[in-house]
Amino acid sequence: MTQTPRSQTPASSPATTQTDRDDEFLADWSVHSRFGAVEGTNGVDRQAASAADGEQRRWFAELLDKHGFSVHRDAIGNQFGLLELVPGAPYVLTGSHMDSQPTAGRFDGAYGVMSSAHACFAVADELRAEPSKAKYNLAVINWFNEEGSRFKPSMMGSNVFTGKAELEAALATTDPHGVTVAEALDAIGERGDFTAPEIAAYAEIHVQQGRSMEEDGVTIGLVNATWAAHKFEFRVTGEQAHSGSTLMGDRRDALLGAARLVVAARELVDEFEPGDLHTACGELNVYPNSPVVVASEVGLLLDLRSPSAEVIAAAHESLMSTVARVREEVGVEIEIVAEHSWDQNPYSEDGVELARSAAEDLGLTSARVMTVAGHDSTNMKDTVPTVMLFVPSVGGVSHNLQEFTKDEDLVSGLHHLTEVVRRLAAGALG
Amino acid sequence: MTQTPRSQTPASSPATTQTDRDDEFLADWSVHSRFGAVEGTNGVDRQAASAADGEQRRWFAELLDKHGFSVHRDAIGNQFGLLELVPGAPYVLTGSHMDSQPTAGRFDGAYGVMSSAHACFAVADELRAEPSKAKYNLAVINWFNEEGSRFKPSMMGSNVFTGKAELEAALATTDPHGVTVAEALDAIGERGDFTAPEIAAYAEIHVQQGRSMEEDGVTIGLVNATWAAHKFEFRVTGEQAHSGSTLMGDRRDALLGAARLVVAARELVDEFEPGDLHTACGELNVYPNSPVVVASEVGLLLDLRSPSAEVIAAAHESLMSTVARVREEVGVEIEIVAEHSWDQNPYSEDGVELARSAAEDLGLTSARVMTVAGHDSTNMKDTVPTVMLFVPSVGGVSHNLQEFTKDEDLVSGLHHLTEVVRRLAAGALG
Repeated sequence: MTQTPRSQTPASSPATTQTDRDDEFLADWSVHSRFGAVEGTNGVDRQAASAADGEQRRWFAELLDKHGFSVHRDAIGNQFGLLELVPGAPYVLTGSHMDSQPTAGRFDGAYGVMSSAHACFAVADELRAEPSKAKYNLAVINWFNEEGSRFKPSMMGSNVFTGKAELEAALATTDPHGVTVAEALDAIGERGDFTAPEIAAYAEIHVQQGRSMEEDGVTIGLVNATWAAHKFEFRVTGEQAHSGSTLMGDRRDALLGAARLVVAARELVDEFEPGDLHTACGELNVYPNSPVVVASEVGLLLDLRSPSAEVIAAAHESLMSTVARVREEVGVEIEIVAEHSWDQNPYSEDGVELARSAAEDLGLTSARVMTVAGHDSTNMKDTVPTVMLFVPSVGGVSHNLQEFTKDEDLVSGLHHLTEVVRRLAAGALG
Repeated sequence: MTQTPRSQTPASSPATTQTDRDDEFLADWSVHSRFGAVEGTNGVDRQAASAADGEQRRWFAELLDKHGFSVHRDAIGNQFGLLELVPGAPYVLTGSHMDSQPTAGRFDGAYGVMSSAHACFAVADELRAEPSKAKYNLAVINWFNEEGSRFKPSMMGSNVFTGKAELEAALATTDPHGVTVAEALDAIGERGDFTAPEIAAYAEIHVQQGRSMEEDGVTIGLVNATWAAHKFEFRVTGEQAHSGSTLMGDRRDALLGAARLVVAARELVDEFEPGDLHTACGELNVYPNSPVVVASEVGLLLDLRSPSAEVIAAAHESLMSTVARVREEVGVEIEIVAEHSWDQNPYSEDGVELARSAAEDLGLTSARVMTVAGHDSTNMKDTVPTVMLFVPSVGGVSHNLQEFTKDEDLVSGLHHLTEVVRRLAAGALG
């Protein structure tokens, strides 16, 4: 009896041409976008530790395994794919997140994880062929719960990984139905006990979520800073009353107080030059939320964002005057339950220069760009040398089922990230 | 061996004095207020078909049974206590509702049911002693889901009873967790198949939920009309977007549109004379309600109420101008998903006069008063001769754990309702 060889592609077989590699990436990307797909749309609903997130993680683990990467999960559900080329050496880590907002686009985060995987597959094949070129090992990461829609706050996986949040507190965080992170991770079998090896450098690529690169005809965004921000969680407290019979002058309406803050946040923008201030309230919860009861309590999240810390400071001052006026005029209490703020937060110039030079060598247009949104790289850059990249978003549409980036930009981004990972693995940032 | 007599009071034993009856009422009232009590407060949380509602109904059934009334439930969970004194004759029906808003006062509705029961107990004893005085039989009712907080709309039990709503549609109505009325009623064993007998007249007593009677020193409110109203369910539709990175001018923020409507509803009041218009938004739901997503859809309920139909019409016109302006300025769609309106709605003058004369004969101060809130009597008055009564609310506090009415007013109201039931049973309204 002869032994039948296994029909699977050997783990390290290099794709023969760049075109083959691009096609393989686009094919995997296409499969990937089906997990949590919202019927009748091109978008997805794949919140952290949902069933769809679990299914996608299992599929992704198989993909990593097929390419010779060993798959691990740490205690907060970050999913790692590791390839050791230089025994005992630190790892170049690259990735993003596969969770999504409810009814969102298929590119946000997911593109970063999939292009990181394929960048590592390509560089792995090169380094297997020429082991002397490797200074570091390769690792792909799918960060847990970057979006923060089901479990707050956002960037939970990288927060815990970088020591900015406590593991136990994160695991005990509940979703609106009272399910904890620990329970939700256990339900999809994605809570592990892996301890990550030493990380030498980090790279992440993401769709822009803005429209400046598309308008300027730029293919690769060299992210050089995060906008400054001040985020508030307000609690407005009034008093329950019959919403019909209570005299208007006797009411202390928490929803009216909250609505005044939502309107004021938008009006605040007009106190500054166009583009200098972004404000938002995306989440607002009313109690008791009954048709005939004046609300006694409303919780709302309100954000100020700007490229300029001076603008944030001035907007903050103006907002606090509004809070005092609403408190007085509506007769409600307004407390700041939580707030956090940060100044304009730069990425390392060495990383930006590495990315610029890689783009130049590949013949891709590039430009420095700031990110308004936070990313897992915002955490990582405080810990290790980090490169953060963007590809264009059509119309800047984001957190929306219609989010779109062209295949040619996805592929250019993959080429660029591959070059960045290649240089990082060779020790370009030390 | 001698047989030990049962220690319970015989079913029909008359309390010996008025004071005894008052004490018995206050004792039962005190027990009654414990069902669904919110710890550390004097209020209750006893939404329709909740466990607390079920426990209270079982206790109330025992109380009715003890006084010789037979207990029945109809298909929408209205709970009846019947006493037949004149075989085959129609019934005088009196009652209110025992369900509450979330974290509400213990008087709203519940006082009406308990005083109706005790009024019937007293009149029953009199008519058992002098059967010739009875023209009609006696029935107490605990209407299902008057509040409409868990299952919409409010007044569900009396809506179905009077044919203003379809039974099947009501039973299929779901709460925010997807539980139907039918399932919730079955869970507490309160869905029956009783068909009520012919009703000759209806009486209801309620706490005022306003403060005019307290201020004017009036003990008995003779309810002569319901305020006019126009109620809207709006859906504001914008577009999901990243709440940080999306340019302010590109946003179509459904929550901003909704907040503008909430603020405008309050400002509308100031276009009219003080007291002429009440407006409210008590319920507002945001989708996707995530911290970093501009909302794509907000549903809100908005009410206009006034003693004057002209004021309602003018307020309606002004509100529609605001809707058009917000649609334009915020770039959102605003649809009216549902609306209903009614003119000032009178109670029968015969009923008002009967109640006035009863108060006069008992030496109780009384005055005509309008109700802003709806009651089950609003349905019943369109079907049978109806008397609607108020007792004072301290400070007019309503739909609030602090709601309060003094014992002396509760007892005066009981005396007055007893006299009204006595006259109705004797055929005072035909």
